[in-house]
Amino acid sequence: METMHQAEPDLSPFFSPRSVVVYGATDDADKAGGRIFSLLGRSGLPVYPIHPTLARIHESPVYRTALDLPEQPDLAVLAVAARHCEQALLDALAGGARGIIVVASGFGETGPPGMELERRLARFARDRGARLLGPNTLGIFVPHKRLDTIFVEHGDRSLLAGGSIAVISQSGSVGVEALGYASASGFGLRAFVGLGNKADLNELDMAAWFARDPGARVLGFYLEDLADGRRFLKQVGRTAVEKPVVVLKGGRTEAGARAVASHTGSLAATSWLGEKAWRQFGIHRARDDQHFCDLCKVLSLCPPMEGDRVAIVTPAGGYGVMAVDCLASQEGPVRLQVADLTPGTEAQLRKILLPFASARNPVDLTAGCTDATYGEALKILLEAPEVDAVLVVAFFAPEGISSRLVNIIATINRQSRKPLVVFSLYGPFTDRHLLEFHDRGVAAFGSMSRTVDALVALRERSLFLKRAYLSPKNE
Amino acid sequence: METMHQAEPDLSPFFSPRSVVVYGATDDADKAGGRIFSLLGRSGLPVYPIHPTLARIHESPVYRTALDLPEQPDLAVLAVAARHCEQALLDALAGGARGIIVVASGFGETGPPGMELERRLARFARDRGARLLGPNTLGIFVPHKRLDTIFVEHGDRSLLAGGSIAVISQSGSVGVEALGYASASGFGLRAFVGLGNKADLNELDMAAWFARDPGARVLGFYLEDLADGRRFLKQVGRTAVEKPVVVLKGGRTEAGARAVASHTGSLAATSWLGEKAWRQFGIHRARDDQHFCDLCKVLSLCPPMEGDRVAIVTPAGGYGVMAVDCLASQEGPVRLQVADLTPGTEAQLRKILLPFASARNPVDLTAGCTDATYGEALKILLEAPEVDAVLVVAFFAPEGISSRLVNIIATINRQSRKPLVVFSLYGPFTDRHLLEFHDRGVAAFGSMSRTVDALVALRERSLFLKRAYLSPKNE
Repeated sequence: METMHQAEPDLSPFFSPRSVVVYGATDDADKAGGRIFSLLGRSGLPVYPIHPTLARIHESPVYRTALDLPEQPDLAVLAVAARHCEQALLDALAGGARGIIVVASGFGETGPPGMELERRLARFARDRGARLLGPNTLGIFVPHKRLDTIFVEHGDRSLLAGGSIAVISQSGSVGVEALGYASASGFGLRAFVGLGNKADLNELDMAAWFARDPGARVLGFYLEDLADGRRFLKQVGRTAVEKPVVVLKGGRTEAGARAVASHTGSLAATSWLGEKAWRQFGIHRARDDQHFCDLCKVLSLCPPMEGDRVAIVTPAGGYGVMAVDCLASQEGPVRLQVADLTPGTEAQLRKILLPFASARNPVDLTAGCTDATYGEALKILLEAPEVDAVLVVAFFAPEGISSRLVNIIATINRQSRKPLVVFSLYGPFTDRHLLEFHDRGVAAFGSMSRTVDALVALRERSLFLKRAYLSPKNE
Repeated sequence: METMHQAEPDLSPFFSPRSVVVYGATDDADKAGGRIFSLLGRSGLPVYPIHPTLARIHESPVYRTALDLPEQPDLAVLAVAARHCEQALLDALAGGARGIIVVASGFGETGPPGMELERRLARFARDRGARLLGPNTLGIFVPHKRLDTIFVEHGDRSLLAGGSIAVISQSGSVGVEALGYASASGFGLRAFVGLGNKADLNELDMAAWFARDPGARVLGFYLEDLADGRRFLKQVGRTAVEKPVVVLKGGRTEAGARAVASHTGSLAATSWLGEKAWRQFGIHRARDDQHFCDLCKVLSLCPPMEGDRVAIVTPAGGYGVMAVDCLASQEGPVRLQVADLTPGTEAQLRKILLPFASARNPVDLTAGCTDATYGEALKILLEAPEVDAVLVVAFFAPEGISSRLVNIIATINRQSRKPLVVFSLYGPFTDRHLLEFHDRGVAAFGSMSRTVDALVALRERSLFLKRAYLSPKNE
């Protein structure tokens, strides 16, 4: 029974519910239950509030128990204090809910009695064929369904529907802060899941679900401890052949692992999960939350990089030099090269460049460039067989450059099978350009080293896929 | 004569002129001359336009030659095309100008004839006791004097007066884009200088000037080639004993040096300037423009870090773990430690923390924290002898946290002699907090690894100063 659950968890009550019930719903927008009830209202689904005393919440009638509802709810969100959770859970199960989100804290993270309580909740749920997310979780956020239980600020205004990245975060705050950050420069979210204390559902279940979700093209995990590290590697490693997987593991250093232990109370037995193990299974490891967001973003937007030769296009010579320095000083095992352009490619470039511009790589368009020269240069480079990817420095200060540049780059990017990444500064005049690039499917980053890190990930992806196809039994 | 100039250049005509003349001034705000004339108008200085045909520009009478001016101008800005520069220069010198900024491109960067022309301009200037900045430069920007010749967007609206960082950039675009970026999250600029082609004034002259400017507390250089690398190291190394020096050197890798050569035409002979040489002279090296801005910022706001033990304060356990991971995975020669708190310090912390919060380092205030607990925890940690610096994760999402937190942290920071740095996410809800932290003198950064890099720089500063004071003959 347990094995079947874990192998093929049916999480549709969480991600595609037909109706939802909220325990602890109120009309007080400052309370979690009030915020959750009003957020869920945006989904267009029937959302039923349950409260022991209130008669109405805004226009909705309030119910006392799930047994009174006009229909059986698929999903129940328990926005009540820990001490009321057991009663609410039993009511929800009796009412037929098959997915349960327990928001309250005060369980396993506070010691053995809390741990015992959350284990009991999980057992009750599973005995009735239901699954439980949490406790101590912000729950889920699924932009394309407008399904949202996250009662703190989380970029919901800017993370538009249509994204393909599934983010599974053990820590609510890390996930939510990262999403808030990511939404400022564009991030295509398929779904966000806060795992919380993992009394029942854990990263293995989510990995299995999103592996089978055709709308999820990249899986990103923030984890502090692993339910079963070896199994996670194997299972997610299989997924990585189909879809890129990014992991930010809190406690990736020994000192960090000790910090996890004092934070979650669990021993993060990570020492055997060395850098090589993750790499072998094709899993991209992030250093911090910014790197995590960047890796998810580039892997969701760009194809793998089939060779290691990068062409650079810039309107400012200094940034061409900086790109070369960043490429050449990469310290990881995957190295990129500054592409050597052939005389033929250079001749093509010279036809469109200004007299003093450089047709050598890095290709310096100079501040006298226009939208059109950018476009022509990009086409030539993406078609050149000696180039595997193009790094574009896109600044909007030069006189001949307009906002149309975003569209020009986006159009060329769509027509190319090679990766194209953009560096555009993240500052007072350029924020919206980063977002616009993203909205048009271009991976754009706000610092040079982050842009180069993004290319490295695309190269790693290609190297892993080559290994995976060469040894089909990889698992 | 040349030696005297280079040893003690009097650059007051550039940075403290009593009056300015602009060649090529127009009332067309789209042209460089028009933009420069109107920018300089903000300085409150007499600014005289010179143009061959115009009668008036806005309300100003226009002059034909500097000999007609009512006073001798200290500074002349030549915003005319390269082919008109010689005539304008001779007129400015005849009129008594002692500082000349040549904006036009089309000189040495285009080949030998242009090189010959710029050399002649520089010789003319120096023969008359004047100095020349450029050509091919955006010139200068001195916020506290509202002195500004930079005719492209450059964060002038957000870089307020009162800053202490002198930025000397060989590349106009790198400097200006970096400033635009820096201004979004706070950057205290004393002065920005674009060196351009360095026909006369170069990085050695600027280093000497700002070494003696009491308002400049940090010197930051972006350089692609060095007039005299060994001399730069020695001279700037002496300055570094008094004031932190940050260098972003384009062409720090071999591949990058080749790119510089094709960009500036000069051979960047940097191979002997290894990492160790820079370190020996106490010079901080930046990887890219973001790192450059971060290093300048933290060194201008924080004291050196006298030991290597860092205390971490966070409202979110996951970010405490991430901080520890980032500290523990530093790859440079300077390592930081997670401070081991004494039982006494932990007992003090437990008095103010919530029951389930962690008093061990990283100190986890939990999402239930308030402005007040932040403040109390910071005071305890900054006073603890086993702590050399504090890294504060400042999020504004927790319910008990208000915008007052910025002031609380800033007040405690002012009273402490140990460094305090803040990590606060740079996203849609927090941009203004980063700026507010900076305006109140707190060094705040938008990613965890950048925050840790900032602490590393403070530790490097302390180690260098100890070496410098132990060997007083260091030069």
